Amino acid sequence: MAPRWKGKDAKSKKDAEAEALKEPMSKIVSQLQSSLLQSDTCGFLSDNSVCLAVQAEQLDLLDKACFGRPVRKVEKDMYWFQLTLEEAFYLCYSLKCLKINGGAESGPSNDDELWHYLKSKKEAFPFYYKAYSHLRMKNWVVRSGAQYGVDFIVYRHHPARVHSEYGVLVLSRDNDDSVNGRLRVWSDVQCTTRLLGSVAKTLLVLYVNKNGHCDESPLCLENYAVEERTISRWSPEQCRERSI
Amino acid sequence: MAPRWKGKDAKSKKDAEAEALKEPMSKIVSQLQSSLLQSDTCGFLSDNSVCLAVQAEQLDLLDKACFGRPVRKVEKDMYWFQLTLEEAFYLCYSLKCLKINGGAESGPSNDDELWHYLKSKKEAFPFYYKAYSHLRMKNWVVRSGAQYGVDFIVYRHHPARVHSEYGVLVLSRDNDDSVNGRLRVWSDVQCTTRLLGSVAKTLLVLYVNKNGHCDESPLCLENYAVEERTISRWSPEQCRERSI
Repeated sequence: MAPRWKGKDAKSKKDAEAEALKEPMSKIVSQLQSSLLQSDTCGFLSDNSVCLAVQAEQLDLLDKACFGRPVRKVEKDMYWFQLTLEEAFYLCYSLKCLKINGGAESGPSNDDELWHYLKSKKEAFPFYYKAYSHLRMKNWVVRSGAQYGVDFIVYRHHPARVHSEYGVLVLSRDNDDSVNGRLRVWSDVQCTTRLLGSVAKTLLVLYVNKNGHCDESPLCLENYAVEERTISRWSPEQCRERSI
Repeated sequence: MAPRWKGKDAKSKKDAEAEALKEPMSKIVSQLQSSLLQSDTCGFLSDNSVCLAVQAEQLDLLDKACFGRPVRKVEKDMYWFQLTLEEAFYLCYSLKCLKINGGAESGPSNDDELWHYLKSKKEAFPFYYKAYSHLRMKNWVVRSGAQYGVDFIVYRHHPARVHSEYGVLVLSRDNDDSVNGRLRVWSDVQCTTRLLGSVAKTLLVLYVNKNGHCDESPLCLENYAVEERTISRWSPEQCRERSI
């Protein structure tokens, strides 16, 4: 399926595509990275998310790069912003532009401690994080897929410019129950492909395999392998050789 | 949700409902039962289905009662008809109006042997059959739910007269992997309720619990318990107390 750019007519769709090409996601994320680094931004853990206080300029960059969501305005030119655990750890560990601490109490003081905290909040965090970072590093925009009954949905640019193209399920060839609750039976495959098909998305399954590697430290992420598979409905009529 | 009778306008919908009331499903199934008994009909096992040869009158009754599907015309006034394993066993074991044999080779010669054969073809057959017969005995029409990513869909009358109201998943509180591949994680619940919601159906989960009872003979079916649960999406806005 070709990307579906947003717009009222063919011309405005073309415009959306041209704007996206002019300002690629990699460039926007770099700008966000520099800005967060410069301001030495620090987020704090708040149960299953990370909160940070940002100024208008960063609010704009976070929105353009599609990380998190604004919560509310605190004071003039200062906003509360909320990141998912995957988003926060990506900015912290992969882009090295965000510090995270445990709030008022004694929180994690280094990457290993933070990693353990995140795993304690979400057992399958290593799998989801590997999938999230795998897609982000390829410059896909990654958002929650809860609305469509999948783990993530991915866009090739900002959701204001383009419809998402894939619904993502994270599974593993490792025999790990924390991440293998989906696609165990055909009815689930039928349900998922039909639902995603009805909203013009393709099911992308990311098998994150630890292959016996530990998950005691985020350094282990390097050894995890990611297999990509798309699953589509097959219509015998459509695929059959055409008669002459 | 109220039943959605089929028709172009309000009047023809009313007519469909009136016709269904005049000719309830229990009556149609009784007619089919008498007809099959009279003709001493015998089906034979063909891998994952049961085939039978029927005449035009029975073809009509099978269609009206929503069992199976016609395959093709064999000769004048004689048709091949195909039943699912659940449908065939229901006619054979619960309604006692169909004999089933193993075709040319030595097949099952009594209910116990047939039960073992069906379990060998479909490991979770006892669970699915209990769910199927549970709904049929309450005069629901039960059809395959493959199209909607569920095990069954149920109609309150013939699908020509009314839209199906429930999508059914068969699960068990027994720790049995053959039947517990669905609804293990939230994303699956979201996927299923969203898909069924989009086609105006409600998710009905039937938990079939053997409670330690054996499954060596179809007599055990009597001891299986069926728990019924419907699952719907909850919208906080819709359900919130109205302000005055």
